Amino acid sequence: MTEVFVLRIGHRPERDQRVTTHVGLTARALGARGMYLASRDSGIVSSIRDVVSRWGGDFLIQDEISWKKCIREWKKSGGVVVHLTMYGERLPHHEDTLRQKDRILVVVGAEKVPGEIFGLADYNIAVTGQPHSEISSLAVFLDRLFLGRELESDFPGAHIRIIPSSDGKMTEEL
Amino acid sequence: MTEVFVLRIGHRPERDQRVTTHVGLTARALGARGMYLASRDSGIVSSIRDVVSRWGGDFLIQDEISWKKCIREWKKSGGVVVHLTMYGERLPHHEDTLRQKDRILVVVGAEKVPGEIFGLADYNIAVTGQPHSEISSLAVFLDRLFLGRELESDFPGAHIRIIPSSDGKMTEEL
Repeated sequence: MTEVFVLRIGHRPERDQRVTTHVGLTARALGARGMYLASRDSGIVSSIRDVVSRWGGDFLIQDEISWKKCIREWKKSGGVVVHLTMYGERLPHHEDTLRQKDRILVVVGAEKVPGEIFGLADYNIAVTGQPHSEISSLAVFLDRLFLGRELESDFPGAHIRIIPSSDGKMTEEL
Repeated sequence: MTEVFVLRIGHRPERDQRVTTHVGLTARALGARGMYLASRDSGIVSSIRDVVSRWGGDFLIQDEISWKKCIREWKKSGGVVVHLTMYGERLPHHEDTLRQKDRILVVVGAEKVPGEIFGLADYNIAVTGQPHSEISSLAVFLDRLFLGRELESDFPGAHIRIIPSSDGKMTEEL
């Protein structure tokens, strides 16, 4: 399975806190291995780490990342950089190619992203050419990349687990 | 194709504005026909209507909806109610069944939802049993329900359209 990390750029502390937290939780729940945050925001780091310690797995979260350096090093080590943007080429045309890659850095911007990113990315990919949400773009991207296998992932070391139920909330403490 | 509307419950004006806007835009971009908002929030209504008028299609957005009445009437008219929740049964087990339905109301909660909703829904469905985001749950749900066909949707009446590009931003005014 392709190793995926997410690079979140354009995050503004306060204003983007909840959306960026959703980006990180989506990354983790749908099979990415970690998120690099190109801003300083210890609140997000600790809330994601809190989820990881309760719900398991080894998702990495790191803030104060230089996005240019992150992209440069990722490419230097042979990884592929995919920028999710509504201006990009359509996902269905590139899914099969991307699934063959060993390591993908998925760049997810907030409202405004530096124009340079379009040139630095190996692929600029649109989930649709309509405005929607970086969270939904990331979710559809990961679900298609992993062909749904990510929904069956294990999260070792969890202290809590949900028991699927047709009509209520059932959890077990581990 | 199944007709889908989204019912957003638990929305708190101010705090949830951006997340609920992302829910609405995701619903629209990925093939739902409209969103009912069980709160009063004219800011969200006008920002979604603004997107619809520029980007096309006939997505409906309505606030100040009573969620109980909305669910009751939907069921009375023969529609199916699906509540997306991490506590529910796994999506892959129900996808094929749900795809046969004519009309689905997808209930999407914010952090806290009234417990009653579990009993009122015909299906409580989890995209994963991990905490992530109502936006990503909705996105994966719609993409799977529509088998990706929603990514090719037309949005008639648009004033702007993106021309997919491998390395920049290209739009056309219509």
